[in-house]
Order: sequence, then structure tokens, then C-alpha cells
Amino acid sequence: MESDRPLDALNASRNKKVLVELKNGKQVIGTLKAFDIHINTVLDNAEELEENQVKRKIGKVFLRGDTIILISPAE
Amino acid sequence: MESDRPLDALNASRNKKVLVELKNGKQVIGTLKAFDIHINTVLDNAEELEENQVKRKIGKVFLRGDTIILISPAE
Amino acid sequence: MESDRPLDALNASRNKKVLVELKNGKQVIGTLKAFDIHINTVLDNAEELEENQVKRKIGKVFLRGDTIILISPAE
Amino acid sequence: MESDRPLDALNASRNKKVLVELKNGKQVIGTLKAFDIHINTVLDNAEELEENQVKRKIGKVFLRGDTIILISPAE
Amino acid sequence: MESDRPLDALNASRNKKVLVELKNGKQVIGTLKAFDIHINTVLDNAEELEENQVKRKIGKVFLRGDTIILISPAE
Amino acid sequence: MESDRPLDALNASRNKKVLVELKNGKQVIGTLKAFDIHINTVLDNAEELEENQVKRKIGKVFLRGDTIILISPAE
Amino acid sequence: MESDRPLDALNASRNKKVLVELKNGKQVIGTLKAFDIHINTVLDNAEELEENQVKRKIGKVFLRGDTIILISPAE
Repeated sequence: MESDRPLDALNASRNKKVLVELKNGKQVIGTLKAFDIHINTVLDNAEELEENQVKRKIGKVFLRGDTIILISPAE
Repeated sequence: MESDRPLDALNASRNKKVLVELKNGKQVIGTLKAFDIHINTVLDNAEELEENQVKRKIGKVFLRGDTIILISPAE
Repeated sequence: MESDRPLDALNASRNKKVLVELKNGKQVIGTLKAFDIHINTVLDNAEELEENQVKRKIGKVFLRGDTIILISPAE
Repeated sequence: MESDRPLDALNASRNKKVLVELKNGKQVIGTLKAFDIHINTVLDNAEELEENQVKRKIGKVFLRGDTIILISPAE
Repeated sequence: MESDRPLDALNASRNKKVLVELKNGKQVIGTLKAFDIHINTVLDNAEELEENQVKRKIGKVFLRGDTIILISPAE
Repeated sequence: MESDRPLDALNASRNKKVLVELKNGKQVIGTLKAFDIHINTVLDNAEELEENQVKRKIGKVFLRGDTIILISPAE
Repeated sequence: MESDRPLDALNASRNKKVLVELKNGKQVIGTLKAFDIHINTVLDNAEELEENQVKRKIGKVFLRGDTIILISPAE
């Protein structure tokens, strides 16, 4: 079940926990609910991390795609 | 009532209070009145926050989309 | 008289005084005369502010849209 | 003779002296000869300013639009 | 078997180990699984490097294309 | 022989010596051989300048347009 | 055999040694194998330079176009 396109791979993480690294150095962890071709991304139950510790709870969050460096499965 | 697209999720916050984080490090809280595909966003009754304290009242404000990192429900 | 689109909200400020914050940290106040979809913006009777004090008078000014963070009514 | 579009306002300065502020903090003053929708701009008899003093004469100059913050009449 | 287009060359590394350098100075090494015209890239078995040492294991990762400087075969 | 479009003005410098200022603060002087709508530019007999002194000879050079601040005739 | 378009000039260096300067200040030298309209570029036998000394051998490398300042023949 190989995926040739990056967005297919991202789709495999839908409704699963992911770690998102932002260009401002912050990390947000949460359940991947939605994304689009710009990589605009919606997480649920999101938390901001600092050195792998929860810094604050954000809940639902819309992340503008151009602020994202990487998205990685976190479960 | 799942939303597959990020802008649908944003739409669910219309007329509700949201927190917007900007690339210059500032935070603006206010009622989400409008947004478009560039994430150009209009808030009403907006306030600029500094360390979770209100720094100044802005009232109505148009935020250029490319300056936005994230938008999160705040109520 | 709700406006669903951000540019409609901006249009409501046409010929009124607005405060524009730029990405270089400067603030310009003036009468909003024109804008387009890139948020290229023309102000009349514009003044540059520094800590809420008028630093210099600019008069008419064309602001390139991608340099703008936010536009807010100022009257 | 109102202009609803920003580029119309810019057009009113054609063949007149304008001040251009660049994202690198420099200011260039000169006669506005041409511009396009990207705000690529050509000035004639241009001079670079530093603290309102002429730093050097440039003569004719093509400015790439994305480097421009603002253009303002200077006469 | 020359490739005239850059993406063809990238394609030759599919399912092979590559080193990716990011604009924030980080290096990620992993198996190239997918990429698109924006250079959005998916690596498997990815590891973050620091001075050629593994700093942390990431596993599967989606890298937003505009954050990438270069991609190079690593086997 | 007025030129209304910025690229026409640039075209008038073809095969002539121009000074190019780059966003990284460097200056390159050389004969303008080619350019396109992105302002991707080719110079011949190019030299890198530092404080108006030749720092090194580059010869032929392709400059990516988005790295250019301004282009000015240099003869 | 003049070339009016920048990419034609670049094409003349195909299969020849070129020096590429990147926005992060690094220099890469290698054989130009491929490029596209975004200036995404593939070099073969690439080496990273530091003050004109080889710092490390990279071999084949894909460079994302928007990270490139200039490309210059190096033989």
C-alpha cells in the first residue's frame, strides 16, 4: 500500500496523532483532522510542546500551511 | 459533523471568539467575522494580548493572511 | 449588514481613517482611499507613528500589500 | 477625480518625483517613469537617501517590486 | 540514462536513502517515499542529524517543500 | 522614446554595463545579456563589488530574479 | 550565438562545471545536469565550498530553486 504522492501519505495520518513543527521553532501535537494542498492544517486536542513537555493546551487549531516545516505521526 | 477541509473547520468558528497568533509574535483575540482562501481574516472587538494580558483594544481589524501562524477557538 | 468576505469589511473603511501596521514594525495612519486583492493600499493624509506619536507626515502613500500586517479603523 | 484602485493612484505620480522605501531600510527618491502590477518600478534621476540626505546618485534605476514597502509623492 | 529534468533526478532516489537539508539548518536522513512539484517530500525511517550524529528518530515524516534547501542521495 | 513598462526600461540596458544590488547586500556589475519577467538576469564579464572596489571576477553569471533589489545602468 | 533568455544562458552550462551560491551563504560546485523554470537544479559530483576550499563532497544533489542566488560557470 505505497503512496506515491506526499498528500496521500499525510492522509494516512488523518484522525491520528501528529507532531507539527512550525517555522517559529514551536511544536504542536494533536489529532490531524483536515489539511489542504497548501498544507493548511487543522488539529484537534492540540497542545504546544517545549522540549517535549506540554507548555499549554490549545484545543482545536487551524495552522496556516506556510508556517509548517514538517508533520510526523506521533503515536 | 466532521469537516474534511481546513476552511470548513475555520468556518465553524465564525461569529465566535478566536485567538490569532501572528508571525511577528503578537497575539490578537476577537470575534471571527470573515476570512478568505488566503486566510485574510476580519476580527471584531479585537484586543492585542501580551503574556495573556490585554495590551490594547483594537476593535475591528483586518489581518493579512500571510501574517498569520494559527487561529484557535477562544471560548 | 454583515460582510462575509474580508475585503468587504475593508471596503467599509473606505474614505475613513485607518491605522496600518507594517511588517517592518512601523505604523501609518491615514484616510483609506483604495486597495486591491493583494491588499496594495493607498492612504491619503498619511502620517507615520512611533509609540502613538506622529513621527512624520507622508501625505499620499501607496503601500505594497505584502508589507502589511493589519488594517484597523482609527476613528 | 477619485481613483478606486491603488495602481490608478500610483499612475497619478507618473513623471513626478516620488520617494520609495525599500525592505532593506533604504530610501530612493526620483522621477517615477514606469511601474507594473508587481510594482516593479523605474525611477529616473534617482538618488539614495540616508536620514534625508543624498547618499549617492543612482540615475536611472529599475526596482524589483517585491523589495518595495511604499511609494509616496515627493514634490 | 540521463535525466533532463530535476524531478526525474529526484525520482531516481525514490525508495533510497537521502539526506535533506532544511532552511532552519536541520538535516533529516531517511528513505525517500514521495515528493511532488512543490518538493513536498515524504521520508520513511527518518532521523534528525546534528553534526552527522543521529539526534532523534522521527520515523515517517512529511516535509513541506518550501522548507527544503537540498536533497542528496545518502547511500 | 518613453517606455511605459519597467521591463522596457530594463531592455534599454541590454548589452550595456549595469549594477545589480542583491538582497544579501552584495553588488554585481556586468554587461546585461538577458532577463525575463521574473527578473532572472544574466550578466557577462561580471564582477562582485565591495565598497565600490572589485572583490572578485565572476565572468558569466545567472542571477535568480527574486534575489535582486535593483538594476541600474553603470556606464 | 546570443541568448536572449536567461534559461538559454543557463542551458549553455549543461554538463559543465558551475558554482552555485545559496541564500544560506553556502557555495556548491558541481556539474550542471538539469534545471527547470523554478531554477530547481541538479548537480553531479557536487562539493560544498568554504572560502574556496572543499568542505565536503556531496555527490549528486537536488537544489530547490528558491534557495539559489546565482549560478556561474566554473571552468
